[in-house]
Amino acid sequence: MQFCSSCGHNVELKKMDSDIHLRYVCIRCETVHYQNPKLVCGCLVYQEDKILLCRRAIEPRHGLWTLPAGFMENGESTRQGAERETFEEACATITTKELFVIANLTHISQVYMLYLAELGDATFSPGVESLEVQLFAEDEIPWEQLAFHTVDFAIKRFYEDRKKGYFSQHEIDFPQPG
Amino acid sequence: MQFCSSCGHNVELKKMDSDIHLRYVCIRCETVHYQNPKLVCGCLVYQEDKILLCRRAIEPRHGLWTLPAGFMENGESTRQGAERETFEEACATITTKELFVIANLTHISQVYMLYLAELGDATFSPGVESLEVQLFAEDEIPWEQLAFHTVDFAIKRFYEDRKKGYFSQHEIDFPQPG
Repeated sequence: MQFCSSCGHNVELKKMDSDIHLRYVCIRCETVHYQNPKLVCGCLVYQEDKILLCRRAIEPRHGLWTLPAGFMENGESTRQGAERETFEEACATITTKELFVIANLTHISQVYMLYLAELGDATFSPGVESLEVQLFAEDEIPWEQLAFHTVDFAIKRFYEDRKKGYFSQHEIDFPQPG
Repeated sequence: MQFCSSCGHNVELKKMDSDIHLRYVCIRCETVHYQNPKLVCGCLVYQEDKILLCRRAIEPRHGLWTLPAGFMENGESTRQGAERETFEEACATITTKELFVIANLTHISQVYMLYLAELGDATFSPGVESLEVQLFAEDEIPWEQLAFHTVDFAIKRFYEDRKKGYFSQHEIDFPQPG
C-alpha cells in the first residue's frame, strides 16, 4: 500500500493512540487503512466414501487437485460462500452440513472454513477455474498432487472420522508449531 | 474506494473475465482491489453461571455492554485474536475452549467467531476500550443495554446450553431470514 484509496495521497505506516499495531494512515485525510485476514470458504463434498476434487485451471498450483473453495465475498454468509464456490468450481448444487475444518494460515493471513456437503444426486462438471472434477475413493486420492496442506488435512480427517462413525470439527494452524 | 492504493490513479468498478462480481480496478496499473468480509474474534468468558461483559468506551454503542471481541489481525489465528481481544478489553488472560458461535452479519460483511473461555482464577479490569468490566449472573444480565444482537444471541445460547448440560456450536445469520 502506497496511496490512500479515499483521496489518492501518500500513506505512511504509523502507530495510532491506543493501538499496538502499525497502520497505513493517509498523510492528508488521515484515513486509517486496516488490513485484515481473508476468509476462504469451501466444501468437502462426498458421496459415500468418495470425495469430489477439482483440478485447478488457475494459479497458484495450476494442475493440482483441490477442494472447491475460494475467497468469501461481501454480502454473503460463510455457508453461502462455500456453496457458491462449489457451484463455480464444480458446477454442483449442494447444501452444506456441519462446519468440518477451520484452518488458520497465519503466514498469509487466511482462514479456511470448510463445510461437509453430501453430493446426493447433484451432477458435477468443471467450472471455468477447474480443468477436471472427479470423485475419488480413499485409495485413489492423488496425495502427491494435492494443491494445499489444508486439502490434505481435510481429506485425512474425513477418512479418519468416517471410520470412527461420526464427524468432528477440526481446527488447525499452519504453519504447525514445533 | 476512489484511488488505487498501489499507484494512486483512479479506480473504476469493472467486471473482469470469469468473475461475476464488480471489482475496483485501477485505470492505469490495472490492479484489482478485492473487498472481502472481515472476521471479528472474541470470547464468551464465564465463571460458573456468570458471564464477563465489558461496557464499551468507544463508538459504536458507547456505554453499552458487550463480549470482548474485535477485528482479527493479520498474522494471528482466530483463537489468538479472541484471546488478544479479551486481554485488550478486559485485561484477562484466558485460554479459549470450543468455538461456540459463528454469526454472519451479511449486511456489514462481518463474520463473528466467539470462543468459550473459562475465567478460572484470571483477574480482570477495564482495558482502554472499556469503561467497566463485570461478571453477571443470568438474572443480572443488562438485556436492554447489550451493544449487539450477536452478544444477546451468544448469552442466550450459553444459558440454554448450560441447562442442557453441554455446549453446542451455534451458527446464525443476521439479519435473520423471514
